[in-house]
Amino acid sequence: MEPRNQAYDARVRGSFADQNVMATLGVSMAVVSAGRVVLEMPFRVDLTQQHGFLHAGVVTTALDSACGYAGFSLMPEGAEVLTVEFKSNFLRPAAGDLFRFEGQVIKPGRSLMVTEGRAYAVEDGASKLISTMSATMMVIEGREGING
Amino acid sequence: MEPRNQAYDARVRGSFADQNVMATLGVSMAVVSAGRVVLEMPFRVDLTQQHGFLHAGVVTTALDSACGYAGFSLMPEGAEVLTVEFKSNFLRPAAGDLFRFEGQVIKPGRSLMVTEGRAYAVEDGASKLISTMSATMMVIEGREGING
Amino acid sequence: MEPRNQAYDARVRGSFADQNVMATLGVSMAVVSAGRVVLEMPFRVDLTQQHGFLHAGVVTTALDSACGYAGFSLMPEGAEVLTVEFKSNFLRPAAGDLFRFEGQVIKPGRSLMVTEGRAYAVEDGASKLISTMSATMMVIEGREGING
Amino acid sequence: MEPRNQAYDARVRGSFADQNVMATLGVSMAVVSAGRVVLEMPFRVDLTQQHGFLHAGVVTTALDSACGYAGFSLMPEGAEVLTVEFKSNFLRPAAGDLFRFEGQVIKPGRSLMVTEGRAYAVEDGASKLISTMSATMMVIEGREGING
Repeated sequence: MEPRNQAYDARVRGSFADQNVMATLGVSMAVVSAGRVVLEMPFRVDLTQQHGFLHAGVVTTALDSACGYAGFSLMPEGAEVLTVEFKSNFLRPAAGDLFRFEGQVIKPGRSLMVTEGRAYAVEDGASKLISTMSATMMVIEGREGING
Repeated sequence: MEPRNQAYDARVRGSFADQNVMATLGVSMAVVSAGRVVLEMPFRVDLTQQHGFLHAGVVTTALDSACGYAGFSLMPEGAEVLTVEFKSNFLRPAAGDLFRFEGQVIKPGRSLMVTEGRAYAVEDGASKLISTMSATMMVIEGREGING
Repeated sequence: MEPRNQAYDARVRGSFADQNVMATLGVSMAVVSAGRVVLEMPFRVDLTQQHGFLHAGVVTTALDSACGYAGFSLMPEGAEVLTVEFKSNFLRPAAGDLFRFEGQVIKPGRSLMVTEGRAYAVEDGASKLISTMSATMMVIEGREGING
Repeated sequence: MEPRNQAYDARVRGSFADQNVMATLGVSMAVVSAGRVVLEMPFRVDLTQQHGFLHAGVVTTALDSACGYAGFSLMPEGAEVLTVEFKSNFLRPAAGDLFRFEGQVIKPGRSLMVTEGRAYAVEDGASKLISTMSATMMVIEGREGING
């Protein structure tokens, strides 16, 4: 897709580095392109739910950032990104050694970016789709915003 | 609402204690009743997004557990709970000293529990609605399940 | 809630009258207030799904209009409303003589209105919750828009 | 995908024919395969919203049926299908001569079918994505159900 800001790679990586929660959860940025971002994290036993799998909310946290930065990569200089809403389905338990989170813009807009995400669990070299996301991201410019 | 398992309070608290991620994020259980659960957590700077607010995914992680355990409180003995899907809207930045997450069953079913959640930020004694959740929880009995 | 346009009642009713599909489905406007709209429709056998209940999509069509006009009632003069997204859960079959659709703004914003809807089936004087909606509505002013 | 009922084509078409609302709205079945269904409808001025486009709810009604029958095509003999929930984003106005609705199963399960839908508007030979759906469908066997 066509970026409106040629420095999008540095802006995305800089903003991601400012998300303290990403370092706290062990999530790193694997791919940045215009309209698409991929994040990764290893399994961590301190982030599990009651059956020993990664908690659905942790999967969602990484998917939200993947979708948000996919949208952010297409925003003009000076804009900020806010999550308006998202919806996720959970298809399989989040069991694996490594997790991969792909965010993709499906409709870039001047004020909203509609995005989709897919989370995969990787185990013994095999990758399984574990969760989907459909998310709306807002382009915040100047003083406007979701709280306006 | 009418519990199908009189020991629901102990079952909910026991399963919650098995969710490692809750301790990791500093989330505690404030209220358990039949069909309704309230969780709380203090602000933590290591769980923030790029503007210094609590990350939307962290809010969602706690709301998902509040909704899941609201549903679990109405399940029969021996059943387990799995999140099928959820959708959240983000109304205001998650800015506050303390966060409160309420999960409520709105339609108890034999195989599915439909729930709703509300997240509040508390600052200087005032409480603001920051996020909503609409979630479907599955009752897992015996060997069946979402992966069946 | 506080309307930004004192003529909101006439504007809402006028725009609703321009939605041809409402007359086609037999949906009428029962209540208009600032931030809240209620619609109603009788059962119609030509709008059913395969088990003889009102089709989930018909319920959604009316809920979307209820939520959209709840949002529109709080918009300034000259603004238009567009549905960004919605999510619905279906709790019980849409069986009844009459259906009631309530839309409510839960967060009014300058560019987005976050709304919630509830659909009820009325039969023999008793009203049952059959469906919920969580919807985001966009305030369209001038030439901007979701397609911008 | 692998059907559990070899007569799925006839079952899907038979159940679709029982949805009165499909004939009322002018929706027809274009493609049935195991796990995927495509529906179509021409534009109709009596199904429009206030700006003269097809109402979002009408798009959703057809997407819901496309997703539901995609799920139904993979269900065993004797099972019925119910919509648990869906979420849709609206990307562009539903402007066109013809509309196409694709439903696809992304995770077949014993009790739930997770599906995705895409709606396209066709005008002057060009097809544009106007709406997405993420939907959960329930497999109803015997006396159980969402109302259980």
